[in-house]
Amino acid sequence: MRVLILFTSLILVFPSHFLAAEMSDATGECLECHATIAPGMVAAWEKSRHARTSPEEGLQKAEVERRISATKVPKPLSKNAVGCAECHTLNPDKHSDTFEHNGYQVHTVVTPEDCSTCHPVEVKQYGQNLMSQAYGNLMNNSLYQDLMLSINGVQFFQEGKTTFKALSQETNGDSCLSCHGTRAEVKGFDERDTVMGAMEFPVLSGWPNEGVGRINPDGSKGSCSSCHTWHRFSIEMARKPHTCSQCHKGPDVPIYKIYQVSKHGNIYAAMGKTWDFEEVPWTVGEDFTAPTCATCHVSLLVTSEGEVVAERSHVMNNRLPWRIFGLIYAHAHPKGPDTSVMRNKAGLPLPTELNGDQVSEYLIDNQEQQERRKVLQQVCRACHTQQWVEGHWLRFENTIKVSNEMTLTATELIIQAWDKGAANGLGQNDSIFNEAIEKKWMEQWLFFANSTRMSSAMLGTDYGVFDNGRWYMAKNIQEISDWLKMLLSVGSETPRDTKSVNK
Amino acid sequence: MRVLILFTSLILVFPSHFLAAEMSDATGECLECHATIAPGMVAAWEKSRHARTSPEEGLQKAEVERRISATKVPKPLSKNAVGCAECHTLNPDKHSDTFEHNGYQVHTVVTPEDCSTCHPVEVKQYGQNLMSQAYGNLMNNSLYQDLMLSINGVQFFQEGKTTFKALSQETNGDSCLSCHGTRAEVKGFDERDTVMGAMEFPVLSGWPNEGVGRINPDGSKGSCSSCHTWHRFSIEMARKPHTCSQCHKGPDVPIYKIYQVSKHGNIYAAMGKTWDFEEVPWTVGEDFTAPTCATCHVSLLVTSEGEVVAERSHVMNNRLPWRIFGLIYAHAHPKGPDTSVMRNKAGLPLPTELNGDQVSEYLIDNQEQQERRKVLQQVCRACHTQQWVEGHWLRFENTIKVSNEMTLTATELIIQAWDKGAANGLGQNDSIFNEAIEKKWMEQWLFFANSTRMSSAMLGTDYGVFDNGRWYMAKNIQEISDWLKMLLSVGSETPRDTKSVNK
Amino acid sequence: MRVLILFTSLILVFPSHFLAAEMSDATGECLECHATIAPGMVAAWEKSRHARTSPEEGLQKAEVERRISATKVPKPLSKNAVGCAECHTLNPDKHSDTFEHNGYQVHTVVTPEDCSTCHPVEVKQYGQNLMSQAYGNLMNNSLYQDLMLSINGVQFFQEGKTTFKALSQETNGDSCLSCHGTRAEVKGFDERDTVMGAMEFPVLSGWPNEGVGRINPDGSKGSCSSCHTWHRFSIEMARKPHTCSQCHKGPDVPIYKIYQVSKHGNIYAAMGKTWDFEEVPWTVGEDFTAPTCATCHVSLLVTSEGEVVAERSHVMNNRLPWRIFGLIYAHAHPKGPDTSVMRNKAGLPLPTELNGDQVSEYLIDNQEQQERRKVLQQVCRACHTQQWVEGHWLRFENTIKVSNEMTLTATELIIQAWDKGAANGLGQNDSIFNEAIEKKWMEQWLFFANSTRMSSAMLGTDYGVFDNGRWYMAKNIQEISDWLKMLLSVGSETPRDTKSVNK
Repeated sequence: MRVLILFTSLILVFPSHFLAAEMSDATGECLECHATIAPGMVAAWEKSRHARTSPEEGLQKAEVERRISATKVPKPLSKNAVGCAECHTLNPDKHSDTFEHNGYQVHTVVTPEDCSTCHPVEVKQYGQNLMSQAYGNLMNNSLYQDLMLSINGVQFFQEGKTTFKALSQETNGDSCLSCHGTRAEVKGFDERDTVMGAMEFPVLSGWPNEGVGRINPDGSKGSCSSCHTWHRFSIEMARKPHTCSQCHKGPDVPIYKIYQVSKHGNIYAAMGKTWDFEEVPWTVGEDFTAPTCATCHVSLLVTSEGEVVAERSHVMNNRLPWRIFGLIYAHAHPKGPDTSVMRNKAGLPLPTELNGDQVSEYLIDNQEQQERRKVLQQVCRACHTQQWVEGHWLRFENTIKVSNEMTLTATELIIQAWDKGAANGLGQNDSIFNEAIEKKWMEQWLFFANSTRMSSAMLGTDYGVFDNGRWYMAKNIQEISDWLKMLLSVGSETPRDTKSVNK
Repeated sequence: MRVLILFTSLILVFPSHFLAAEMSDATGECLECHATIAPGMVAAWEKSRHARTSPEEGLQKAEVERRISATKVPKPLSKNAVGCAECHTLNPDKHSDTFEHNGYQVHTVVTPEDCSTCHPVEVKQYGQNLMSQAYGNLMNNSLYQDLMLSINGVQFFQEGKTTFKALSQETNGDSCLSCHGTRAEVKGFDERDTVMGAMEFPVLSGWPNEGVGRINPDGSKGSCSSCHTWHRFSIEMARKPHTCSQCHKGPDVPIYKIYQVSKHGNIYAAMGKTWDFEEVPWTVGEDFTAPTCATCHVSLLVTSEGEVVAERSHVMNNRLPWRIFGLIYAHAHPKGPDTSVMRNKAGLPLPTELNGDQVSEYLIDNQEQQERRKVLQQVCRACHTQQWVEGHWLRFENTIKVSNEMTLTATELIIQAWDKGAANGLGQNDSIFNEAIEKKWMEQWLFFANSTRMSSAMLGTDYGVFDNGRWYMAKNIQEISDWLKMLLSVGSETPRDTKSVNK
Repeated sequence: MRVLILFTSLILVFPSHFLAAEMSDATGECLECHATIAPGMVAAWEKSRHARTSPEEGLQKAEVERRISATKVPKPLSKNAVGCAECHTLNPDKHSDTFEHNGYQVHTVVTPEDCSTCHPVEVKQYGQNLMSQAYGNLMNNSLYQDLMLSINGVQFFQEGKTTFKALSQETNGDSCLSCHGTRAEVKGFDERDTVMGAMEFPVLSGWPNEGVGRINPDGSKGSCSSCHTWHRFSIEMARKPHTCSQCHKGPDVPIYKIYQVSKHGNIYAAMGKTWDFEEVPWTVGEDFTAPTCATCHVSLLVTSEGEVVAERSHVMNNRLPWRIFGLIYAHAHPKGPDTSVMRNKAGLPLPTELNGDQVSEYLIDNQEQQERRKVLQQVCRACHTQQWVEGHWLRFENTIKVSNEMTLTATELIIQAWDKGAANGLGQNDSIFNEAIEKKWMEQWLFFANSTRMSSAMLGTDYGVFDNGRWYMAKNIQEISDWLKMLLSVGSETPRDTKSVNK
């Protein structure tokens, strides 16, 4: 039987290889040098679908099987494989990083705007995704700026006060902005010696970076290669959980760790080696027998009979009724992707008050929550009964409530600390993130409550009990309470003032 | 040569496919609807051995190769594949979750009692396993009830006192009982709209759950699908370590993490892709070249010559002389699976006194320890010399002693805290788990001493030094000592009383 | 096409199998018994290249493809497969663990000196590697001896003082020396009952062990099987990151965890299953499309055109300009492998002063750093542009600076603690590692600063922000500052004296 399969695949495989789209002359010229200059980069591309398929061929597929969402692709691009030149010379006038290179107008940073030539629906959807605004959501939020400084700023003690050194672009790019995205900017052009002689190149700051909300030299936002790793752009890789883990593994958002300890992750680890991660559409049960991140949050799923279980979505959070991490309290999902515009009653750029009340005007309403709940539950129900799914969601939404209550208790303690002078907070016009007791409060929500909720959502319960969840929520409250008493006993003769930034 | 292998496998594979057991008419009826209602569930089953083998065929194998331990299977079940109806309609009268469904008496929760129709030896053995009592061992132990409340109970501060809100079934099911098992109970019957029209179903509380000690609607205990994941019930999956990791990964019992960092785990990760995880019996060196969890603790192992290295055992702890995690001190393994019956001299439901002395009457004696040591060492010696094995065990049992001593020192400090009024403990009739300093003491044994011992046992030493072992044992004692001084300096004017549970 | 490949591989595979080197008579004799005594051990060897290749065949390969670096192998060894007898009877006179065994002079511990018979270049290089001195670098450094005692020593409180029990060989072998290597010594000879009757064997202390700096019974240092796991000695395994993870995973040196969360590790996890880990030389892009540890630090790399990207090196640290972990501050790499000889101005065996200034005479100079930087960047540039690589290194070396500054601040606090009597340090002739506040200071560099730097170096930024990096660096400084105040408030009426070791 396996021999039969071989002969069949022979028939199927040969033609596509023989008919593989040819590369353009321009791309051929690129490869003449680059195959020896950066052979790994070229080899990745050669193994890609881009290297053997033209947009025209992509368009010939049935709609449900298409990996290209444009209905038409500009003629000069349509017949050839999608090679170096096809992407790196697109929209030259929009790119401030365009430079003359052996007769071509080349740019370094390929952007969502470039990708939208063939993949416009995905790029448009992604623009509605919180991730596309990840740079601004961090850099244009005054509280998060305090947060970044309090974590990454070099600390000194001067006359009993902590002074924080201002952050450099190098530090930002090596920490928060690594995932959130940098501003990739052209600082000038520079001549360099190369094996081909002297050549001029743009000098980029904020580079390298593949952050999800990168600000690009053509003004667009995001980086498709965050998940669709250049230069192979493999759908297999985007669908495997390791890709998501690059930014979703730390204690602030340990999604990958939770997946690993869940039954779903267990099935993937043990049995995933035989799954088909390349098929479009992706057939439940046939191509895979347990979900990865992409299954629940992104991919177009169908049953063996071709019935659609879930439509493909690069908004990603449009299957999510709740936002369960990154903020003090879990809350209904934000309406729009730009969260820096939010203000609570106290004027803070937060989706809730300090007591957990939601700032409704910025958040989706119950009806929209119910819609999203249904869409996601539809995915669950491809393998589970209705009763199973409802039982699971009951627990999950109870855990949202419980974890918010545990955060409220910790918040009441930190407010006491501020009120009694054991720490400097909002009333003292000081950062609320820079002192030891404040950092303990932060861990209550940023690490422990978040992790507990995510463990519940994804059935990685082991993580949510002792790993970084309920145990630490409970212990932390008691530690904050003791720490507060100890601070009050010591007296706060050495107030910290972290607003003083020593550049 | 590979072509030859292909032709050979052709001959071997075809017949078994052609002769595959047919499904029963009843199962056929199930699939008519369920193939489209929950396609992932059905697809998993279709890939299972159950879907292509009848019990009768299973019984024809040589005894050592059998995956079925019944000597006879009831006639109506013996000739067909083991499908939906075969399991979900077994023992209808015993199941409180039985309901009428398209003319069949169906139940939702398939239980060890059901599985014992074909697998009676495994079910009986499992009943002697601590795991089968995991629900009662937690819920019927007053100290562990205190522990659960102190971890999962929502905390409030009222007049300087911590108050704990009583635990809900949802919280329990989403935390401890997720692994220990819930009580899956029928709360009534309910009519639901389905794509097939209105239908009646049982309403289950404590559901979903796959915990190892689940109390089932037929009164039986446990869930075979904890490890033999439904609906594929793959022995490959049960033998791979990811399955065990679902409940054995957190800092209280980081077995999987320790395995990963051991040479054994390293070999599995690097070379395991070519191993045969399906063979019964499992041949050392031929089918695999390093152990997984199942190898040492469960599986029937033979040499290439067919000599038995270890008998299959679903008791699991009968290859274990020591119980090295979950309790304050490591101790000889309990005699029976129900640990809630134990009482130490102080009347506490513990296998040791607070000073570490063993409560012998509940624990196996030296001779039984020696027997078990020998059985496990027999597995070690399939790949290692006697000297190697003895050297390893010498270190491991030294580490048991050393880690118990480090726990004793921490315990002496917490007793001081209780005596001097820095915390409320046994003398004050208060929980011994609810205050910050008590939680530090708990981490000494629940996390650090346990992890150190397990790292030693499984040769994942890197974990036991800095990851969650010796470093933290040493640091924690010093922190407890300082914390105690600080508490005494502050004064304990705000005693906590966690017995007050605010429902 | 796959069938064509099959036929091709048929032609290629058959001869090597048919011509497989025969085992020697001596090895045949070993296997007569050992195939049944330790079948897993023998099976591993049977799957090895050693079992089917003779040194003579190895020498016939083109130089760049050779896995053997000797130009000539002693005649009696050259024609047969490399079996039990070939290695375990080498250099009998040098081995204090040699014993008479069925007419052969056999030794238990095969050493680098033995391996150098065929692999002299690798053994010589390895001797220049820090790892080869890992035993002495720990055991001959007085500060590290304090460190070991403060971590692994059982602590007691006696009259308010902490007393540390001296370390036993069992504890050392089960903790630090597990990775660093034990001293494997013959303590005598012993007669044992075996299935073959009474036989005499050496009694080894410090055994089992595979630590990288093991002191061997022939006086040599190291253990090739640390990475080249016996008895398969698979290059595939040595090249996969799991092997390195055995000693490089804990918070002191979380290299594997950082790799996992990096794009490189992501590509390996998702796509590595199709890579060729056996080829020598190792071709970038062809055999693999992202680096593992070995790629950057050890392996001989070539391009598809056969151009050498990097030479094989078992020195390993000769591609490293900086030493970024294990010490208080990052610093230029040591000149020689024996670090126990270093003394700073204060007479401490450290490569820096307590303020971070480098002790230049023991460290490589700027020019050597630049050479090493270039060699490593050459590997980066096999897949990345020059601008990409420079941008990355700019951030990395900024992070070295920033993390050293954060350590300096913590060090200033601990010096205050010593000066003000809140802890006993150098001035009090006490260990600087044994008190709670000192352990917090240690975590600043041993865990947090180290992890931040490594995350930066290997682009696993997520780890370096919240997992065990910048967040904890920032929080820890504030905690040390608060802790110091609290200690001063309590008063230090109970000074600790850890020099008192209670044997």
